[in-house]
Amino acid sequence: MTIDEFKTYGHKIVDWIAEFYETIEERPVMSQVMPGEVKTRLPSAAPETPESMDRILADFDSIILPGITHWQHPSFFAYFPANGSFPSLLAEMLTAALGAQCMIWQTSPAAAELEEVVMEWLKKGLGLPDAFTGVLQDTASTATLCALVSAREKATGFAGNEKGAAAAGKAAGTLRVYTSAESHSSVEKGAKIAGFGRENVIKIPVDGNFAMIPDKLEEILKRDLAAGYKPACIVAALGSTSSLALDPLGPVGRIAERFGLWFHVDAAMAGSAALLPEKRRILEGVEYADSFVFNPHKWLFTNFDCSAYFVKDPAHLINTFSITPEYLKTSVDGEVKNYRDWGVQLGRRFRALKLWFVLRSFGLEGLREKLRAHIAQAEQFTAWLREDGRFEILAPVNLNLVCFRYIPRSGQSPRTPDSPGVPSEAELETINKKLLDRVNGTGKVFLTHTKLNGKFTLRMCIGQTNTEERHVRQAWELLRDYAGS
Amino acid sequence: MTIDEFKTYGHKIVDWIAEFYETIEERPVMSQVMPGEVKTRLPSAAPETPESMDRILADFDSIILPGITHWQHPSFFAYFPANGSFPSLLAEMLTAALGAQCMIWQTSPAAAELEEVVMEWLKKGLGLPDAFTGVLQDTASTATLCALVSAREKATGFAGNEKGAAAAGKAAGTLRVYTSAESHSSVEKGAKIAGFGRENVIKIPVDGNFAMIPDKLEEILKRDLAAGYKPACIVAALGSTSSLALDPLGPVGRIAERFGLWFHVDAAMAGSAALLPEKRRILEGVEYADSFVFNPHKWLFTNFDCSAYFVKDPAHLINTFSITPEYLKTSVDGEVKNYRDWGVQLGRRFRALKLWFVLRSFGLEGLREKLRAHIAQAEQFTAWLREDGRFEILAPVNLNLVCFRYIPRSGQSPRTPDSPGVPSEAELETINKKLLDRVNGTGKVFLTHTKLNGKFTLRMCIGQTNTEERHVRQAWELLRDYAGS
Repeated sequence: MTIDEFKTYGHKIVDWIAEFYETIEERPVMSQVMPGEVKTRLPSAAPETPESMDRILADFDSIILPGITHWQHPSFFAYFPANGSFPSLLAEMLTAALGAQCMIWQTSPAAAELEEVVMEWLKKGLGLPDAFTGVLQDTASTATLCALVSAREKATGFAGNEKGAAAAGKAAGTLRVYTSAESHSSVEKGAKIAGFGRENVIKIPVDGNFAMIPDKLEEILKRDLAAGYKPACIVAALGSTSSLALDPLGPVGRIAERFGLWFHVDAAMAGSAALLPEKRRILEGVEYADSFVFNPHKWLFTNFDCSAYFVKDPAHLINTFSITPEYLKTSVDGEVKNYRDWGVQLGRRFRALKLWFVLRSFGLEGLREKLRAHIAQAEQFTAWLREDGRFEILAPVNLNLVCFRYIPRSGQSPRTPDSPGVPSEAELETINKKLLDRVNGTGKVFLTHTKLNGKFTLRMCIGQTNTEERHVRQAWELLRDYAGS
Repeated sequence: MTIDEFKTYGHKIVDWIAEFYETIEERPVMSQVMPGEVKTRLPSAAPETPESMDRILADFDSIILPGITHWQHPSFFAYFPANGSFPSLLAEMLTAALGAQCMIWQTSPAAAELEEVVMEWLKKGLGLPDAFTGVLQDTASTATLCALVSAREKATGFAGNEKGAAAAGKAAGTLRVYTSAESHSSVEKGAKIAGFGRENVIKIPVDGNFAMIPDKLEEILKRDLAAGYKPACIVAALGSTSSLALDPLGPVGRIAERFGLWFHVDAAMAGSAALLPEKRRILEGVEYADSFVFNPHKWLFTNFDCSAYFVKDPAHLINTFSITPEYLKTSVDGEVKNYRDWGVQLGRRFRALKLWFVLRSFGLEGLREKLRAHIAQAEQFTAWLREDGRFEILAPVNLNLVCFRYIPRSGQSPRTPDSPGVPSEAELETINKKLLDRVNGTGKVFLTHTKLNGKFTLRMCIGQTNTEERHVRQAWELLRDYAGS
């Protein structure tokens, strides 16, 4: 493809993108295709000879697009968001054009130094302790893996790195990780990868708000120490995935400090809220953390993937991940940051650029405005649920996530063998699953579910960049109308 | 930013990109900025209020661009390439616009199914065994980590996952990984993360061509077994980073089979060459592999990051990485591939799209043409070195990488205390370092170095999408003229 052809198609695609966003609300939020439907429309081998870009783009429209679940649809309320924005998208275009692989300073000094700068901007913006140093990762899964490996190494005097987890474990005792019963699955996955083992991820009971109970944590730590285990790490969920529960960082952090454990805070979604002075209290106690992660790609208008990982002492990261083959040595290694040693991957995209575009283009005030609007929308949605009277709110609405379920005949007594009344838990699950499928089936909204205390729970997470009150109202009206119909 | 503003800036950026590629040869390949130069030009905190996109783009031009090392410059001969292309770039624009997070089938069925399809296309294109199944990873580092963790689990009956590496190791013995002395640093890094420990990565001696010696491998395995170690994994380098040495997959694979070990093949760079019938012999023996990785983002014109990982039995991957929290369960989980369970990260970009654009837009024949051109250019460059007579070729030129050094007064006898002659090794290092710095300092080319047999070695890797013979000739002329001047 020549430069002129690129220009032609590049302009076409910009127009396509503009029209895509203009008409996105006409598309179903959740793809309505059936398993296998996309696959059967694609040939079984690559073409031998070139195909025209016109044909590829036509196939993109007719085959791929119907199979896309629209995360950028303002009525996307599922999971946690991955909210992009136009400034971020423009930066992604430039990143792709430069095509730089930013593994070390020399392979693009501006990428390394811009990363350092925007991480400082984020640190100040969120009010994180000065002592923290930031680095971009792809996802919170990877960041949490970094934290777990760092914890393993701290607990074994870096013996795991050198001698392997088996030998280190023999010397130190079986290493364990402690985390809230509501923490993200990435903690368990990371613990498997890093060799802790699933059995050694100890889930600490949570209180009525689904937050970790510090007293239980302490009790279990003492029990484990007495039994000869070697506690290594505590992972707090600052905004659990199911309900955005906020573990109390201060009390948990003080326990980590007292027991000499690595303290990692997973604030993947909720971290952005610390930009708001009125919400910054969620970070109380973060000064005890050894590492902290939040995802600008979730709730800070920066395209996936972009995860901000902060550590108190980068030496732990570097000692854990550093490799220095001859072919990567440069004459400035003593003066610069080579981020290849700050994470799992050697190769790194130029992710700082989109963050820079977003932070400058919105400005901190612009970002705060968006976050406040989402929080207000979540409060409004909760008010509608309450006013209706047929819905149960299943967790505190701490920020922008509402957990609820529909209870037919609510207000009546629980059913007994002899009298009708509130449906059983199993019936409620069926009823709410059906409600979820029906509202999602309209294509007008997309919500997902979880379980809280064993209860099938609908989750309404409000964080897409372009979500307005009218989108939230539509979701509410669909739920209201389908419930009981 | 409104849709209209996006359109305006999107078009501006497309024009910018076109001009960037039109004029890229006027820019220095390797950024010429000094450490700290970019950082000092950036403010220390994010702006409170929005800044205009015009201003951001102006700063991008004046502050960021000079700090970029141009991986897409046709005279980029450093490291291994990360060769993008216009079709790939167009796809990246669409991927960023969709902003889909493709962790499971439901979160974008088309992304999951297109990934399945293009991985089949690649498998057929390269002539990999039918039994392989593919999945996209970000980098070969991550893919190799997946292989190592899978190997650990296979060797311990999945006890590591469950009970932790320490307990599993106690039962099974100290786990070890065997790899060529020339293999990539990601093997050591992955072994550290997965808990094998650096000491348990055993480097197998290489032959005169820097390829693993199967007899040595067998000898060491027997020695380790006798000493009570538990061999778990063999990693072959199919195209080592220093010299593109090709480990003999057949003999090594048969040893892996005989000893019951996981066999991983790291073909990050060289794998693409298997698209050429005349080079496919490099894959002889790949049928013994349990896992195989190569990077379309290196030498297949697909933007970084995009790494193709193939496994013989996906159950190993899934058993190792699977997590099934309630909030990720869907009604179709039994019928579809949920790639979140096929790797380290939960979140996943829609990487298959760019690969689809590239494979269709080039066609397999178009890709082969490019690869053949690069290989021919490497042969031409080698011929020039040889004809000149002052350069030593330090490794076989297997594909598109030439390893060499300049030897002043070559042809003369080695220097003795009494007579001048060929410089000492230390002098040669200084001389070649200086030569490298001088040619890179012109900004007209970018080469990097390695060490082979302790010898300071210049590496000329030819793989950028737009490299033509004239660029290779210019590199040669610079080296020729600066050598000895």
